[in-house]
Amino acid sequence: MNIVIIGGVAAGAKAAAKIKRLLPNSNVTIYTDDTHVSYSACGLPYYIEGSFSDYRSLLVRSVEEFKVSGIDVYLNTRADKILPQQHQVLVSTNNDAKLVKYDKLIIATGARPYIPDIIGVNDFDNIYTLRKIEDGIKIREKMLQSAHATIVGSGFIGLELLEAFTKNGLSVDVIERNDRLIKAFDPDMSEHIRTRLESIEQRTFRFHTSENVIEITGNDRIAHTVKTQSGKEIHTDMIILCVGVVPNSELAKDAGIEIGKTGAIKVNKLMQTSIEDIYACGDCCEENHIVSGQDVWVPLGSTANKEGRCAALNAAGQYTVFEGVLGSIVSRCLNTTMAMTGLNETSAKEAGYTPVSTIISKPDMVAYMPNVGDITLKVIADKVTGLLLGGQAIGSFGADKRINSLATALLAHMTVNDFKNNDLTYSPPYSTTIDPLLDAMNILCTKITKHC
Amino acid sequence: MNIVIIGGVAAGAKAAAKIKRLLPNSNVTIYTDDTHVSYSACGLPYYIEGSFSDYRSLLVRSVEEFKVSGIDVYLNTRADKILPQQHQVLVSTNNDAKLVKYDKLIIATGARPYIPDIIGVNDFDNIYTLRKIEDGIKIREKMLQSAHATIVGSGFIGLELLEAFTKNGLSVDVIERNDRLIKAFDPDMSEHIRTRLESIEQRTFRFHTSENVIEITGNDRIAHTVKTQSGKEIHTDMIILCVGVVPNSELAKDAGIEIGKTGAIKVNKLMQTSIEDIYACGDCCEENHIVSGQDVWVPLGSTANKEGRCAALNAAGQYTVFEGVLGSIVSRCLNTTMAMTGLNETSAKEAGYTPVSTIISKPDMVAYMPNVGDITLKVIADKVTGLLLGGQAIGSFGADKRINSLATALLAHMTVNDFKNNDLTYSPPYSTTIDPLLDAMNILCTKITKHC
Repeated sequence: MNIVIIGGVAAGAKAAAKIKRLLPNSNVTIYTDDTHVSYSACGLPYYIEGSFSDYRSLLVRSVEEFKVSGIDVYLNTRADKILPQQHQVLVSTNNDAKLVKYDKLIIATGARPYIPDIIGVNDFDNIYTLRKIEDGIKIREKMLQSAHATIVGSGFIGLELLEAFTKNGLSVDVIERNDRLIKAFDPDMSEHIRTRLESIEQRTFRFHTSENVIEITGNDRIAHTVKTQSGKEIHTDMIILCVGVVPNSELAKDAGIEIGKTGAIKVNKLMQTSIEDIYACGDCCEENHIVSGQDVWVPLGSTANKEGRCAALNAAGQYTVFEGVLGSIVSRCLNTTMAMTGLNETSAKEAGYTPVSTIISKPDMVAYMPNVGDITLKVIADKVTGLLLGGQAIGSFGADKRINSLATALLAHMTVNDFKNNDLTYSPPYSTTIDPLLDAMNILCTKITKHC
Repeated sequence: MNIVIIGGVAAGAKAAAKIKRLLPNSNVTIYTDDTHVSYSACGLPYYIEGSFSDYRSLLVRSVEEFKVSGIDVYLNTRADKILPQQHQVLVSTNNDAKLVKYDKLIIATGARPYIPDIIGVNDFDNIYTLRKIEDGIKIREKMLQSAHATIVGSGFIGLELLEAFTKNGLSVDVIERNDRLIKAFDPDMSEHIRTRLESIEQRTFRFHTSENVIEITGNDRIAHTVKTQSGKEIHTDMIILCVGVVPNSELAKDAGIEIGKTGAIKVNKLMQTSIEDIYACGDCCEENHIVSGQDVWVPLGSTANKEGRCAALNAAGQYTVFEGVLGSIVSRCLNTTMAMTGLNETSAKEAGYTPVSTIISKPDMVAYMPNVGDITLKVIADKVTGLLLGGQAIGSFGADKRINSLATALLAHMTVNDFKNNDLTYSPPYSTTIDPLLDAMNILCTKITKHC
């Protein structure tokens, strides 16, 4: 049995390792146009920051390690065309091309950075995106010689790089076309993130929201000025584009595989595409949102691993389902933890709910303890049914832990009333006597009289 | 309307504050034989340790603050007898006694330390238990003049005091009659706690398990030697008895109120006792265990607060239920976090389940990050149905967060299969790509073939 896997960062690498264990006699081959296989892309901001010195710490399994497990990996090898009828894939390097046979094909082509339409965006060598190992190496090298960086986009990666750059002594301007940072958060919580970050003493960064970059200028392939729509001119040493990613779904689309409305590959809960014997997993495919029941595209490394595992099990003939995602995310920027799960108020309304919410600000442990931190927690529920819909947390290191408890509640379709007396652990170094989550539930209960 | 509350530490104080807000025109009175009201008893080990300098940080609301809210508090006042027929309580101080009328009575008499049957246990002034504010003050004063302490009992409070004493430079012997530390944990996890604590370099403490104290000797009311059954003689400056607590249920029993088989007051989910207009809450009453459905007695401050609130709401005529507890606990000893929820293997068998379990040891975040910690996690499920039953976590600071996610799953009666693809947040500073909880679920799935 020939198992061909296209792509090998997270989902593809996981699928390969799993299926080889399940079917030791099969031929498992990974083709990837990347220079590396099986690595932690989520760790690149921390490599750039200098949290560890060798980028090879990010490598999970090397080509040689795959080889020892009986898996062949072809780096720098593009998959140009899938021929479903013939069960073949056309792959090529810069020197060669060949057709490879598959019995089961797993597409794990991932996503790529979106390049915004800015004059000059392709003209300079010091404009970067962050996706692959070599991107991280180049950005770190340039950062070490720079005094100023411009980050375009204030999503999670933009703010992680803000941390990396400021910790390395750079002055940073962040330009965001929306009216707030991290638009996955509700406006009130985005505002809280901004206030918290801007309260840092002697900060060396500035946020420019509702601001579009219209032109980048420079000389000799070195950009030095970023011009915005409102007329600002920012002189800079390097520019990072962090304005989102797009799924690498063109190969699948070209093969006649159904693409979802999000633009990513449509799969069922077995990770099967619309064409027999072809599976997809990871950042290239969309998921079911467990709360809304809608198709969403939330490309994340943790999900990619689970989907890779699920695709492998099903491709190997073992039935297992991946129910979907909650959109759970955590990210850190300069001692601010930002975490969320489920629907925000906007997506809750779009899904047909009547969201009601509360925001609690509290210490993250009993206030008399040393090193007490803070947490601002928002919980959202449906006013009609009391169903929990989502939550967002901002604060010191423990803020994310509440989001994981809430994610579990969302997975179980719990109501506010189901949750409100949850027996969460308590001890002064770990939580307040009544955890912020339970405070939020009690307040929500008074707002949802009927089902509470 | 006269609301009388007996006891005012956590449940009583919470009930008083809540009912006064619900019924502002009622007379709310707290009678307590304690010298303080409304305080964080769980914080006493950290006061002793010196995490904060003024014991008054532990006080949540003072008598004066209650007075401002319209609540009368009588300290040093015993409730000697409840007369349910007459709706009266006999209360007394050292100088006086009176009968007080109630329309609703809330019993929140708490628990008291169990005093083991040891020769000499009542004969010396440097033998302590830790329950009340003045206990904490006395222990801290004595600790500051001591070089050696003996802790009898290795439960959570015993180990919290071990931390306090060793951080203050004392040499400590811990004597435990069971064959392991913290018997709420399964033996394998208890062993792990011991190994972790004993691996501390230059430690100044020793554990003696399977060892009974049979006699304490000394002179002039100062104990100086602890003698054990096996013949050990430990010379010491102070002795702390941490061998558990017993519910203060005698007053209720004397009034004809039904006592549960645990020895604590039996209440229904509205916190009503067997006698009309009398409620009980906090450490003096037992609870329903949400996983096993059995009556249990798990006296904890967080539960006391929830029960106090529930009793107040129902006494005020607003219907609300407290479904019960999961036995969730977290405690810290010298950078070791110990947390648990639900049933352990022993209690799972007692409840009629067929427990199957797995233990995972992993870093608590991606291993290339600085300050990476560790977590050892045990998850227990029912082999027949796949129902999640409980879990235990030991490790660095983030270990407890997994237990809260698991507690939420227990509250929702989730199975291993329901949980195994839970969308928990991931980012390198916060978790491994596949969280230890999900690793555990995947392994359990392979052990529970039918329902996974």
